Amino acid sequence: MACSANELAQFFGPNITNSTAAADFICSRFTIFDNNYTATKYAIDSTYLLFSAYLVFSMQLGFAMLCAGSVRAKNTMNIMLTNVLDAAAGGLFYYLFGFAFAFGTGGSENGFIGKHHFGLKTIPSNDLDYSNFLYQWAFAIAAAGITSGSIAERTQFVAYLIYSSFLTGFVYPVVSHWFWSTEGWASALKTHNPLFNSGVIDFAGSGVVHMVGGIAGLWGAVIEGPRIGRFDHSGRAISLRGHSASLVVLGTFLLWFGWYGFNPGSFNKILVVYTDGSYNGQWSAVGRTAVTTTLAGCTAALTTLFGKRILSGHWNVTDVCNGLLGGFAAITAGCSVVDPWAAIICGFVAALVLIGCNKLAEKLKYDDPLEAAQLHGGCGAWGVIFTALFARKKYVDQIYKPGRPYGLFMGGDGRLLAAHLIQILVITGWVSATMGPLFYILHKLKLLRISADDEMAGMDLTRHGGFAYIYHDEDEFSKPGIKLRNIETSATTSNSSDV
Amino acid sequence: MACSANELAQFFGPNITNSTAAADFICSRFTIFDNNYTATKYAIDSTYLLFSAYLVFSMQLGFAMLCAGSVRAKNTMNIMLTNVLDAAAGGLFYYLFGFAFAFGTGGSENGFIGKHHFGLKTIPSNDLDYSNFLYQWAFAIAAAGITSGSIAERTQFVAYLIYSSFLTGFVYPVVSHWFWSTEGWASALKTHNPLFNSGVIDFAGSGVVHMVGGIAGLWGAVIEGPRIGRFDHSGRAISLRGHSASLVVLGTFLLWFGWYGFNPGSFNKILVVYTDGSYNGQWSAVGRTAVTTTLAGCTAALTTLFGKRILSGHWNVTDVCNGLLGGFAAITAGCSVVDPWAAIICGFVAALVLIGCNKLAEKLKYDDPLEAAQLHGGCGAWGVIFTALFARKKYVDQIYKPGRPYGLFMGGDGRLLAAHLIQILVITGWVSATMGPLFYILHKLKLLRISADDEMAGMDLTRHGGFAYIYHDEDEFSKPGIKLRNIETSATTSNSSDV
Amino acid sequence: MACSANELAQFFGPNITNSTAAADFICSRFTIFDNNYTATKYAIDSTYLLFSAYLVFSMQLGFAMLCAGSVRAKNTMNIMLTNVLDAAAGGLFYYLFGFAFAFGTGGSENGFIGKHHFGLKTIPSNDLDYSNFLYQWAFAIAAAGITSGSIAERTQFVAYLIYSSFLTGFVYPVVSHWFWSTEGWASALKTHNPLFNSGVIDFAGSGVVHMVGGIAGLWGAVIEGPRIGRFDHSGRAISLRGHSASLVVLGTFLLWFGWYGFNPGSFNKILVVYTDGSYNGQWSAVGRTAVTTTLAGCTAALTTLFGKRILSGHWNVTDVCNGLLGGFAAITAGCSVVDPWAAIICGFVAALVLIGCNKLAEKLKYDDPLEAAQLHGGCGAWGVIFTALFARKKYVDQIYKPGRPYGLFMGGDGRLLAAHLIQILVITGWVSATMGPLFYILHKLKLLRISADDEMAGMDLTRHGGFAYIYHDEDEFSKPGIKLRNIETSATTSNSSDV
Repeated sequence: MACSANELAQFFGPNITNSTAAADFICSRFTIFDNNYTATKYAIDSTYLLFSAYLVFSMQLGFAMLCAGSVRAKNTMNIMLTNVLDAAAGGLFYYLFGFAFAFGTGGSENGFIGKHHFGLKTIPSNDLDYSNFLYQWAFAIAAAGITSGSIAERTQFVAYLIYSSFLTGFVYPVVSHWFWSTEGWASALKTHNPLFNSGVIDFAGSGVVHMVGGIAGLWGAVIEGPRIGRFDHSGRAISLRGHSASLVVLGTFLLWFGWYGFNPGSFNKILVVYTDGSYNGQWSAVGRTAVTTTLAGCTAALTTLFGKRILSGHWNVTDVCNGLLGGFAAITAGCSVVDPWAAIICGFVAALVLIGCNKLAEKLKYDDPLEAAQLHGGCGAWGVIFTALFARKKYVDQIYKPGRPYGLFMGGDGRLLAAHLIQILVITGWVSATMGPLFYILHKLKLLRISADDEMAGMDLTRHGGFAYIYHDEDEFSKPGIKLRNIETSATTSNSSDV
Repeated sequence: MACSANELAQFFGPNITNSTAAADFICSRFTIFDNNYTATKYAIDSTYLLFSAYLVFSMQLGFAMLCAGSVRAKNTMNIMLTNVLDAAAGGLFYYLFGFAFAFGTGGSENGFIGKHHFGLKTIPSNDLDYSNFLYQWAFAIAAAGITSGSIAERTQFVAYLIYSSFLTGFVYPVVSHWFWSTEGWASALKTHNPLFNSGVIDFAGSGVVHMVGGIAGLWGAVIEGPRIGRFDHSGRAISLRGHSASLVVLGTFLLWFGWYGFNPGSFNKILVVYTDGSYNGQWSAVGRTAVTTTLAGCTAALTTLFGKRILSGHWNVTDVCNGLLGGFAAITAGCSVVDPWAAIICGFVAALVLIGCNKLAEKLKYDDPLEAAQLHGGCGAWGVIFTALFARKKYVDQIYKPGRPYGLFMGGDGRLLAAHLIQILVITGWVSATMGPLFYILHKLKLLRISADDEMAGMDLTRHGGFAYIYHDEDEFSKPGIKLRNIETSATTSNSSDV
Repeated sequence: MACSANELAQFFGPNITNSTAAADFICSRFTIFDNNYTATKYAIDSTYLLFSAYLVFSMQLGFAMLCAGSVRAKNTMNIMLTNVLDAAAGGLFYYLFGFAFAFGTGGSENGFIGKHHFGLKTIPSNDLDYSNFLYQWAFAIAAAGITSGSIAERTQFVAYLIYSSFLTGFVYPVVSHWFWSTEGWASALKTHNPLFNSGVIDFAGSGVVHMVGGIAGLWGAVIEGPRIGRFDHSGRAISLRGHSASLVVLGTFLLWFGWYGFNPGSFNKILVVYTDGSYNGQWSAVGRTAVTTTLAGCTAALTTLFGKRILSGHWNVTDVCNGLLGGFAAITAGCSVVDPWAAIICGFVAALVLIGCNKLAEKLKYDDPLEAAQLHGGCGAWGVIFTALFARKKYVDQIYKPGRPYGLFMGGDGRLLAAHLIQILVITGWVSATMGPLFYILHKLKLLRISADDEMAGMDLTRHGGFAYIYHDEDEFSKPGIKLRNIETSATTSNSSDV
């Protein structure tokens, strides 16, 4: 808002005592209020984004607990350490490179990769602040957290460190640049988008985050093969159940909680007035996004509950948890641009997709302890397609740009669907072309899979200093059938002369 | 705020060069700032309400962990599944019906039940947005979560699904319409309230949420009777201790955390200036509400600690946790309208009420694994009475309406107390008249209680696919005294040709 | 912002029709907008502070889980009860005395201790609201929570109650008055500060909170001596491993989550415009603080991972968790005034400090089950020094006062370092002079340490009504080697005729 004191002074004219002073008096106050409003916007939007980032970060705890509960007790410390390290190594690599590759726009436009803000040197900039970095970091480590589930219980710790750094520092940032940066070649924010003049609406990342994490996990799990005992001699699948359903439920609810930062938080700003003349601003779209997210998850959970009851004859809480998360992974792309009723369709189909992917995985003897490739890859891909079908014109106009393509089933043409199918292809291709060779090289270098002995004994015992739980004093030394060949005293407590 | 350019132009008069243009110039900018302030209010209040809703949702995780820890290991997956399903089924039913019954005002006034906004079709409306739905949904599932504790360890899963949907979709919404909707016959927000021209001050729901959940649980637990072994042949109570104190403490702290969304969040808006001439606005009342909530819980915890030490001779953490929650359940009604010192009285008495209710329950051979009826019903009722005694005029005037009845001990007359006693009666009556018959019909249809065999073996093994925990590889097959007659391989992992 | 209608009317002069009415018209609207902005600031800042307080409160859950997982199963309920009680007793004592001692400024200035706002009688005041109390209470109980870890597994419960009340009600509040109150003798907020005209920059309390908690724990642990079996006859350290790595990781992630309330939240306000002419306001500094916090923790975790790998030969998740927390404890003092790259240095050194302190503790036969004195005391002290070295002029000017001393390595002089070294000395002295005698008196009165029999059997069994976990029905009565001499039925469930 401009206030030209000159203009106002001319309206006043020469007959008033001091028209310049009067106009200055008035305009200077208008300027103050204008500045106040700008500051208010920054403060509200930063509060909104930072607390959303904290919620997304809490998903890392959710992944840790979900993973821990889903593996056998003997590998608990191993998988939890990878989750802690995803966050920690991700922090450094995303700070050094990742954020720059993803959102370092400016200068000559580059649709493939960003090239500014390395080490946050040029932050805060005009449109990026520290809060944006924190929010995006929490997303990057979520992608790495997904992958860690697929390769659980049989992967060397050093392989985790390598893939996790590579994924959060390079592979994932490039994908997020394509779809979320204003310069990205497939971004819906880019004017004159080469992709059918549409670009992709992947609001919070069914493709950008979930498919990336899931496909990376798929390659890792395929290359190292199933856990010992997962399929018997006749090829029949054997359940290797996780050791704690309580941790699974704890992790699932934490992920649900954190998803309210992931999806509604992806607006980044909440104090945005929509220009279609009502007070129906971004705050309302944020609330609607929280509602669509909730309903998709709820529907997927109920669908899984009854579906699995019919298929297996019992009510299974861990299956319901996975179904719920599949619903979330699917709605993530379209959460902001679809109606609540459409979210119910999204969740219903997501549950079926997950059941189907799990069936397929068994047929193909694919072993994924967390069902991560099926859940995040499969349901994520469904979410990308769903958005292209059900995105509503009004919401797309408000959140993206008036007049751009929207959902095929909502009266739109097929351009958005075409763009989204291409998104699925390029994400699959890019992640396969980067993470596939990485896992293969690790495999060839004997850095990927642990030895069969270690796998039988459990990695906690052989690599992480002991068993995760000691419920009775005698526990530590009474587990039958396990050779205690490799226990070391913990460094913290060992006599320093020993180390 | 209106800015009439005409009025201003007349003040300027004909002597200035262009009085209309000057007045338009000034008023158009005032209008912009006025709109900015409106948008700012929406954005802040939505941020406040949504994050409060997320906190209330985290209470569902709290209930899940508290319930899990309070039951025996063999029923852990069963109770956690009900908590997940409360949230999921509650989401669908509250979306389809519940929110409409509770807050669907408009058209011809209906004091008993709402009738708009089914399936959120007419949301956002003038005064309700998606964020309101999300917040109220989180409350609805809290009521269902309370009830699930009372009937734990002996109830068929299908009975949970039925009562939970009925409670979140109909019974609870009707009660919240009575007391919280602007049209409700007993609402303090209704002008010319038929209830002693007062209505009920149940700010965050000691009656509306906690008594509803507790009384529903009471009927369920009474109709199906105590767990096997809870009372011996001579009628003496036997402790059936929960399997994990860690989960109990985890759940309790999560509920404490979430209660900061439940109580202070019930203001819904934080940017409200009070008209008594100071800058002592709603933000300060919100903070005070967080403080009264804290102090009531703290006092109840300490009272329980010492009370139980005297009664039982040891320091009991799970009892302290329950005492703490009893203090929270009690302060919930009056949290916004009492002083911090009064909250201490509230918590002190709540702890005694809980101890007394538990004594009474034992005498009556009433078995409630989570003490839910005693805690949420008993302490909730005390909270309703407490509010009628200690509500302070100044706070009632600010938050509700100047001049309306306030606390009897704070200089008010007895009208508020009379209204609150009626609240206790009608909630007890309504929940008994709806949930009592429902549980009775389920009982008659043999859908309520599991078989004695299932109860002895544990529901996880017989209905949910296995035991919740496997700490050692050999665990699954070494539990003595349990017939493994019903273990199925998990559907996720079983060979598809088997199912 | 003032709007003088008189001044404006004079500018208009006598030629316009009604200059007074025009000026009143305009100024009255400016006044409304000015009031709106004031209300907006209150609402945003209160929202920000309250949700930060909730995050800090969640750290109490983090401490409870971390402590529980780090002790042996037989003392789980004991340590969790102390964590619940820290919060509850802390609530009452901080309400009655603590907040007044810390922030009760006004009247004749007192640099040593505050003397207003006892029992929140005079809250809200001009600059303190209920939200400030809640936020500071959450800090006070964090200090008590730190101490409880040092003396775990061998301390009588009554000793916890006494030290915790004394610490949260008196010792900690006095320290926070010195460094954080506007009247404190060493506060950076005090004009004409006697401490080298500088005062101390301990933004979120590496010294005020972490050193206080750590040194208090040090004295308790020293006075009661190591746990039985912690050092063998030859003085060699024996690992007494905690019973659940899952709880350790859960607690660590919750502390990480809560630290986003602890550090960025310490700004208290987010809508503050910096006067150096840009829109680079406090919201950006808040985000930067979240980033420095994250990077310090991440770096410390990675450093510990590799450091411990080299020293002990395995990858240890609980050590990594402690290293991470050491990084957080260190960055807490300087989080707001250093650059992200400096935070990496801070975390790197913190990890080395923690490893060194642990080595020293072993040499000195100091037993601290949570490494609390090493972690919060040692890394906290490093954080105080780090801030004096790396605090950047620009940030110090914005957040504190232009022209005051800043970091020695960043071009400042040595005054800040001198002040910070004195901070370390006076905190060590004050806590030693108050908590040392307290623990010593408890020791002399035989109220500090439990009996050897109780220690061997575990406190849960002898003092808290039973074992924390029952995974199998027969568990409770089958633990070999433990005399069940003191089991009582739980009061909740015992027959009332027995008690």
